[in-house]
Amino acid sequence: MRGAILYGPGDVRVEERDTPRILEPTDAVIRTLATCVCGSDLWDYRGVNPAKDPTPIGHEYAGIVEEVGAEVTAVRPGKFVVGSFFAGDGTCPHCRNGYPSNCLHREFVGGCQAEHVRVPWADGTLVATPGLPTDAQVPDLLACSDVMGTGWWAAVAAGVQRGDTVAVVGDGAVGLCAVLAARELGAERIIAMSRHESRRQLARAFGATDIVSERGAEGAARIQEMTGGIGADRVLECVGTEQSTEQALKSTRPGGGVGIAGVPHGVQIDGAALFYSHVAVQGGPAPVRRFLPDLIDRVMTGRIDPGRVFDLTLPLDQAAEGYRAMDERRAIKTLLHP
Amino acid sequence: MRGAILYGPGDVRVEERDTPRILEPTDAVIRTLATCVCGSDLWDYRGVNPAKDPTPIGHEYAGIVEEVGAEVTAVRPGKFVVGSFFAGDGTCPHCRNGYPSNCLHREFVGGCQAEHVRVPWADGTLVATPGLPTDAQVPDLLACSDVMGTGWWAAVAAGVQRGDTVAVVGDGAVGLCAVLAARELGAERIIAMSRHESRRQLARAFGATDIVSERGAEGAARIQEMTGGIGADRVLECVGTEQSTEQALKSTRPGGGVGIAGVPHGVQIDGAALFYSHVAVQGGPAPVRRFLPDLIDRVMTGRIDPGRVFDLTLPLDQAAEGYRAMDERRAIKTLLHP
Repeated sequence: MRGAILYGPGDVRVEERDTPRILEPTDAVIRTLATCVCGSDLWDYRGVNPAKDPTPIGHEYAGIVEEVGAEVTAVRPGKFVVGSFFAGDGTCPHCRNGYPSNCLHREFVGGCQAEHVRVPWADGTLVATPGLPTDAQVPDLLACSDVMGTGWWAAVAAGVQRGDTVAVVGDGAVGLCAVLAARELGAERIIAMSRHESRRQLARAFGATDIVSERGAEGAARIQEMTGGIGADRVLECVGTEQSTEQALKSTRPGGGVGIAGVPHGVQIDGAALFYSHVAVQGGPAPVRRFLPDLIDRVMTGRIDPGRVFDLTLPLDQAAEGYRAMDERRAIKTLLHP
Repeated sequence: MRGAILYGPGDVRVEERDTPRILEPTDAVIRTLATCVCGSDLWDYRGVNPAKDPTPIGHEYAGIVEEVGAEVTAVRPGKFVVGSFFAGDGTCPHCRNGYPSNCLHREFVGGCQAEHVRVPWADGTLVATPGLPTDAQVPDLLACSDVMGTGWWAAVAAGVQRGDTVAVVGDGAVGLCAVLAARELGAERIIAMSRHESRRQLARAFGATDIVSERGAEGAARIQEMTGGIGADRVLECVGTEQSTEQALKSTRPGGGVGIAGVPHGVQIDGAALFYSHVAVQGGPAPVRRFLPDLIDRVMTGRIDPGRVFDLTLPLDQAAEGYRAMDERRAIKTLLHP
């Protein structure tokens, strides 16, 4: 089969790879109908996380089940499924507590920018749609496998409730999906922080009521000003730098919550500042599987359309251009069709 | 009137001070029936927070209202009252959100180791008991003004729920009260971390089901071992050092919560470690006023007896000995009778 391989900084190639097959009785193999490039893939692409050897890349996928292992009961061949980038067994205490992305037996589902994907722990990881989706729904469902699930998690971790004022730090695909999540969870005022016109437009379409272009300390001061010196009820951190984390903490009212969806890179949090702020913080790799049934339902019933974050669609063979476009910020997010 | 004054490291004297009087129409002046020495007073006493000038000290108080300002309506002279160390107006957004200790107009109520105390924002700060308490109830009510309210806050901030496994880091008065709070909130298993026999006994009396003597990384490893490698559902941090904070975070299961009641001194939290742990964190100066009506009710109906943390009772004039006993860890907490 064809699949994307990262050879080194800036060097992604689509080549022949071994077609994955069932290795464990709990596996499924799916035929990928759509996959995509993640902001977090860019860390590897830019060499921030240096790859030692050529590595199959990609961790977002949606497609048709081709084959399942002997112990798989929740999905069967022919079903359209969406899954999470972390496979979890669905039965360990962490999974039962709602944290499948911290499953005691979790496995990263890598190499997904390819025609086929092996998904471990299929019962605990994949969710089938009720009937086959339309072509138009496929990007929306694909978005649920990571960015929409991660934006939703940011909102849940921050504790978004009906009527809240919510600020979203970061205007990448996750930040935009976090705006959509805040809207769906009933936030009354949603402040998106963005400097890019195309992203601002999508933020508004997803439910943002206000747009702020300031960043860092100025961004936090602007949120304080807009909320009468009180702070936002919830702030969704979708970047992962020290500056964005501090901005999020300083934008939140005492007793409010910060949900951290951006993978922290070099972030230190001052314990005393956090303490005196009275702000509640939770983050982590999104427990996407927890939200998938609900998100799939919202897509299939037309409530949400997170696939709009894909502003570039290419055949899988042009993955290299998909990476370049995102790296150069010409695209928010690239969808790849195998 | 007589009142304690901190002159410098290790130097507390009880001397004549001006008797406080009503300065603002929202003030009350109370006659102190009981006050006490706080673990946080020891930071000043030891010179960690150096005092520039002789400073009236103490921030815990319970007593009889003597006089109220023209705008005070919630309490009246003759009532027995308990209040918080932070006075709040009770009407600002932070107060209404449940964070009176972060009131936009908050004032620290200092110099309480004295015969009389001026309490600003009396309506938002003081809570009267239904009828006068017995002498035996006075220490329990005094404890509610800080340590019991702070232990309760640690449990609330961590999110303690019925059936939880809770670990408490720190065996000072706040840690012991946190054990009691966890019991009252329905925790099924309560692991107190203590090496001191008298404190272990009180922890057991307050509801601890297990005692652990290991600290730091070993303490966290022990909690993991006792919970089958999962971690405690909630951990109450009642110390405030970097070691105790790390211990708390590493003792908690993914999706569990850490409530930070210990004032952090030199604590840095690694953003990536917090992220990958999936642990929720909240802390801050306890919003004691939020809990006072409930805590007073539990004391008056005999459900809780947090006054047992006072293992040394002295007349106010012997405040110096009260500080020494706590500094040398001969006493958990000293009650002073003016």
